Amino acid sequence: MKQPLSIVKIGGNVLENSTELTRCLRLFAQLKEQKILIHGGGNKATELAEKLGLKAKMSGGRRITDARNLEVAVMVYGGLLNKSIVALLQSNSCNAIGVSGADGNIILAHKRPVGEIDFGFAGDIDHVNGQMVSQLLEAGITPVFCALTHNGKGQLLNTNADTIASELAIAMSQDFETTLYYCFEKKGVLRDIKDDASVISHIDKKSYEDLRNNGIIQEGMLPKLENCFHALDKRVSKVCIGDIDMLRTGSKLYTTITL
Amino acid sequence: MKQPLSIVKIGGNVLENSTELTRCLRLFAQLKEQKILIHGGGNKATELAEKLGLKAKMSGGRRITDARNLEVAVMVYGGLLNKSIVALLQSNSCNAIGVSGADGNIILAHKRPVGEIDFGFAGDIDHVNGQMVSQLLEAGITPVFCALTHNGKGQLLNTNADTIASELAIAMSQDFETTLYYCFEKKGVLRDIKDDASVISHIDKKSYEDLRNNGIIQEGMLPKLENCFHALDKRVSKVCIGDIDMLRTGSKLYTTITL
Repeated sequence: MKQPLSIVKIGGNVLENSTELTRCLRLFAQLKEQKILIHGGGNKATELAEKLGLKAKMSGGRRITDARNLEVAVMVYGGLLNKSIVALLQSNSCNAIGVSGADGNIILAHKRPVGEIDFGFAGDIDHVNGQMVSQLLEAGITPVFCALTHNGKGQLLNTNADTIASELAIAMSQDFETTLYYCFEKKGVLRDIKDDASVISHIDKKSYEDLRNNGIIQEGMLPKLENCFHALDKRVSKVCIGDIDMLRTGSKLYTTITL
Repeated sequence: MKQPLSIVKIGGNVLENSTELTRCLRLFAQLKEQKILIHGGGNKATELAEKLGLKAKMSGGRRITDARNLEVAVMVYGGLLNKSIVALLQSNSCNAIGVSGADGNIILAHKRPVGEIDFGFAGDIDHVNGQMVSQLLEAGITPVFCALTHNGKGQLLNTNADTIASELAIAMSQDFETTLYYCFEKKGVLRDIKDDASVISHIDKKSYEDLRNNGIIQEGMLPKLENCFHALDKRVSKVCIGDIDMLRTGSKLYTTITL
């Protein structure tokens, strides 16, 4: 039987509040099974870019990573956030090592081709080296990923943290029974966006179609759920969406997604 | 017989010149034995601090790391420099993982006690977890250290890269036949500071005393050499001082220090 592995992605809202981050990392450290953390960047990179006088470049509503903004991302994601998280996990007796996709050659990506939009140094994932991650886990190490990958030719690339989480989960599912946790600011997928208590406890492909057709799930949640089903299609056992309390033992108030 | 291990420390002058850094990392990647890289910070941190309007705080000629300057150090050393070096090593087929002393709980330190000077978040090393480093090496990984440690209670600390290199070399000497390379801007310890060709090829404790008593070695080189002899006293096999060309196979123009 495959061993369980929890892959937890935390986003901006947790990273921007040091009390929440400390609480989140304590809960994460207490997970008994083998585990991996992935963190996004949040507003810290935008703040630093602004302090340095860099303007956020947008095109078609999407952020462009030029060379100087990539430097900011590497400093904030790979440095400040990643190392601070590692130090906090260590203080909770969790033996973490912080990595980008370049470390251990774990995530190879290519620079997104220039089409109508030139996204700059944005990376789309080609390959996840699950064997290296397994070696780290076997050595008792908890890998902590920031949202950076590389192209194998010396170039770091900025890659969406949700995508890193799902691609890692897919790669690890070859050897582990993998559960993917997406932590965000809500208790889960909500039936009524204005009612935090209206968490839908379980979604499968069939009910997802209904929820989508009835307009209950819409906008930003749609690509998130498509991403979840993509992971499930590729043998990830279970995807959970909720706030950090879903990591608490016995917690039930979050959304579980299965095929 | 113990296996050979090379521990290479590179400093500011190499990090500030991208052509030199690329050349240095190519030479490092070509070393056939197991190896570890340690890098300092150079001027990049000072540059970023200045851009952010932080003034370098000095006391008695020494730099003070306040909370905001520590953030800069974590971003530049742990992020920008460390991850860029890892990506470049990967492009040279060297399977590097970038770490601070917090990663894998490898280097525990304490905040330097406040005496006449309060150094802020400067860390003095208490313990190096050589076993974790050995595990990484055994997994075929080349660790790349930046000049950061932690106190085990969630606090990152700024620590001198030369000291990290020597303490790591001492810890690893329990299981490896360790050579410690200090790369700097000169070809080695010079008999005449104005003559780059006047490299002293070998220094031992006896000749060091003579060189010091005759005023041939002085100022900045004295603490460097004291540091080397401290490592040798603690079972490091050999310490070499020179520029990056000393990593080249067959190179002879550098200074070797033994007991």
